[in-house]
Amino acid sequence: RRSHMTVSYTDPQVSMDLLRAVLQPSFNDDIMAVFRKYQKFFEKAAENVKENVGDDVQTDQLIRETYRNVLEHAKQLFPEGEMKRAGPEVPIKRSRPAEEDCS
Amino acid sequence: RRSHMTVSYTDPQVSMDLLRAVLQPSFNDDIMAVFRKYQKFFEKAAENVKENVGDDVQTDQLIRETYRNVLEHAKQLFPEGEMKRAGPEVPIKRSRPAEEDCS
Repeated sequence: RRSHMTVSYTDPQVSMDLLRAVLQPSFNDDIMAVFRKYQKFFEKAAENVKENVGDDVQTDQLIRETYRNVLEHAKQLFPEGEMKRAGPEVPIKRSRPAEEDCS
Repeated sequence: RRSHMTVSYTDPQVSMDLLRAVLQPSFNDDIMAVFRKYQKFFEKAAENVKENVGDDVQTDQLIRETYRNVLEHAKQLFPEGEMKRAGPEVPIKRSRPAEEDCS
């Protein structure tokens, strides 16, 4: 019997998040590959910081915090609400057909 | 004259964030390429949701929210504080050479 499932499968975001959870490990691998591309720059920078500021700087922690910031800023690729784009475009409002007419 | 700069270049995270800001656009391109790999799955899922829940579901918005969640969850790759790893590994403490000895 499945009558006691607590997750609402009719909540759109819940359904999407199930797929997200499935794909997340694979996505994380790809993300890590991207970070490895830039790793040497961040390591160099962290070492410079340590040199300038002092030995109590934990470079690993500094780099991880920076990486989390990268991911946070990447969210701006997918803005909330209506897409706001520069330019003369006017947001298109889809007019709903009046359902009362279909009798 | 540069005497009125308000940014502290001795704050380790500020220094790192300058590099982050420089690399962010390039990083965003790579992130977008990763998302394109998975796009068809999310589009399919969003269409299913729309079919099941109703036409007032905005699939674009749903997908963008899911993508932000992907990025949020990816932060767990870079945990705050000490790295906590499963397994028998013991964190390596590098012993500092006692500088007082070098006289």
